[in-house]
Amino acid sequence: MIQERLKKVLKLMEEEKLPQMIISDPSAIFYLTGKWILPGERMLVLYVNLKGNNRLFVNELFPISEDLGVDIIYYNDVQKPVEILSKYVEKDKPMGIDKNWASHFLIKLMELKAGSAFVNASEIIDRVRMCKDEKEKELMRNSSKLNDIAIDRMIKLIPKKYSEKKMGKILSDIWEELGAEGHSFDPIVGYGANAADPHHVMDDSTVKEGDSVVIDIGCKKDSYCSDMTRTVFYKYAPEHSREVYNIVLEANKRGIEKAKAGVRFCDIDAAARDYITEKGYGKYFTHRLGHSIGIEDHDFGDVSSANTDVVQPGQIFSIEPGIYIPGEVGVRIEDLVIANEDGCEVLNHYPKDLMIVE
Amino acid sequence: MIQERLKKVLKLMEEEKLPQMIISDPSAIFYLTGKWILPGERMLVLYVNLKGNNRLFVNELFPISEDLGVDIIYYNDVQKPVEILSKYVEKDKPMGIDKNWASHFLIKLMELKAGSAFVNASEIIDRVRMCKDEKEKELMRNSSKLNDIAIDRMIKLIPKKYSEKKMGKILSDIWEELGAEGHSFDPIVGYGANAADPHHVMDDSTVKEGDSVVIDIGCKKDSYCSDMTRTVFYKYAPEHSREVYNIVLEANKRGIEKAKAGVRFCDIDAAARDYITEKGYGKYFTHRLGHSIGIEDHDFGDVSSANTDVVQPGQIFSIEPGIYIPGEVGVRIEDLVIANEDGCEVLNHYPKDLMIVE
Repeated sequence: MIQERLKKVLKLMEEEKLPQMIISDPSAIFYLTGKWILPGERMLVLYVNLKGNNRLFVNELFPISEDLGVDIIYYNDVQKPVEILSKYVEKDKPMGIDKNWASHFLIKLMELKAGSAFVNASEIIDRVRMCKDEKEKELMRNSSKLNDIAIDRMIKLIPKKYSEKKMGKILSDIWEELGAEGHSFDPIVGYGANAADPHHVMDDSTVKEGDSVVIDIGCKKDSYCSDMTRTVFYKYAPEHSREVYNIVLEANKRGIEKAKAGVRFCDIDAAARDYITEKGYGKYFTHRLGHSIGIEDHDFGDVSSANTDVVQPGQIFSIEPGIYIPGEVGVRIEDLVIANEDGCEVLNHYPKDLMIVE
Repeated sequence: MIQERLKKVLKLMEEEKLPQMIISDPSAIFYLTGKWILPGERMLVLYVNLKGNNRLFVNELFPISEDLGVDIIYYNDVQKPVEILSKYVEKDKPMGIDKNWASHFLIKLMELKAGSAFVNASEIIDRVRMCKDEKEKELMRNSSKLNDIAIDRMIKLIPKKYSEKKMGKILSDIWEELGAEGHSFDPIVGYGANAADPHHVMDDSTVKEGDSVVIDIGCKKDSYCSDMTRTVFYKYAPEHSREVYNIVLEANKRGIEKAKAGVRFCDIDAAARDYITEKGYGKYFTHRLGHSIGIEDHDFGDVSSANTDVVQPGQIFSIEPGIYIPGEVGVRIEDLVIANEDGCEVLNHYPKDLMIVE
């Protein structure tokens, strides 16, 4: 266990008067132990208790050779893991549950009355994870450095007129060459009308003159994610596309300008969104401004009109306004920032002024 | 909605006296609607009600253009989807929950008292899905045909001495060339000692003379999964490895011999396991004999000593005994079978007698 991280979790549990909790997300378990365990549908639970009776429950198909500083309870495929878990918990006290734990485990735990109440306690660990320590900030910078290199190569490939799918495969090779573990999320390369779908899945489309090309990519490097979007134009940019581009760019800059510790996330969202709305494109900006990022591409916490939380120093999130006019043009410009007391550090250094690729 | 499948689900709900349920697995929703919706962490729920008040709840970022024959309720990122869902349910009646629904949704639904009780009802849909209809059987045969072709190509590549990782990438290209959607699971190519780890993650290892080479691969073709394992030897097979191989092969054959409608899954597991135990290798066969397969590589239902369910006609599952002697040799031989009244149809046709690759 990484003691300083565990201490922060225990401190929040004490503040919330939560004596025990179940942590099940492999990424949260990695954060606290330094070890990735990926057991698929099989139960993986790090049980944390204020009294220090911590235990890690793992299927014996995933043996752990390292000393993680926590007792490991192995079970096998013919045993009932929730029943085993239930023997180690304090049944007369409330139990915190991790947000993505599969419901069938929770229902079983409830049937076994292995807790006096069951509450979603993910925020305890998620809020600790939101504020990156110095080691994590450095890993995030490194991951984004690779992303700067990769997006440059991708943009230079546009004149080759590869299909979107082919571009995605080339990007896999780029990550490998750069020493990254791979994509941090399914990348998007969208040409023309496809660029106007913010969640487009890459297909066999090829680029046409005048298309906007949305490239939304990121890698995992040493388990930390990068994520950046650039939009460029092939051969020329139609007048209306230019207008849209420059509005999104200004919204991106206004979001970054607003991002600092002490400001509410919803106010950062508003800084970008209000500008787009003012320019008449509000209804084409169909998603939140951004999301937290770290060990996962979508860490807990979003930059949206609904999030009234105040930004803390060390939090890392994306600023990614977009305008999507169906069938015509899509533009998104995304950067990651580390919030600090004075403003924010932008992790992406690839240029973002309107670019025409010849 | 695919009416004949929905009818089977409703029939089981009636039998179980369950008036309503939440289906959340994208694969289950595909099974019932013919449409893949992959909303990541955002809520996706197909609410099914015996009275026919079915509704599909989807984030508006994932608009559906087809008529799915069910009313769609869209929500956006600033709305609270579980609250919206709760307005459509029968609060005074029990609610079935899908097994992998993220716990935070369930906890919220419970807080809203949107049901008189909450039970894991996945088996209702999962058991319907286990018995494949004729269309599905044909899709499963097609997917396995591609797997036969692919494994032949992979085995022929062994003398090139590519790293395990490189073999995995070549396999991606093979799937694309064969018109498959891609891997149905993270493939395994394991050389030597790596072959002795049943959940080995491919690395930069290369093959050595005398190595066993475990190749466990499958594709998705038209949304249906294939899955096959073959183990071959490079240049020669040491005496002990031959012995292990032939024991696993006989166990595979005994499992297949036993597989038919009317037999319990645990008895199929025993048919293979008892033979391996008898030969003195029981402790090296560390996993269940097999798993159901269909739209997902691991569908509901396993072939294990714990599963006393009786096999039904049309169920498709794997028979995959293995012996893993740490640091020395690993052998697994896996086929998919469709159970019928008289026995079973084996979907994989690639040879499985001991093979030396020169």
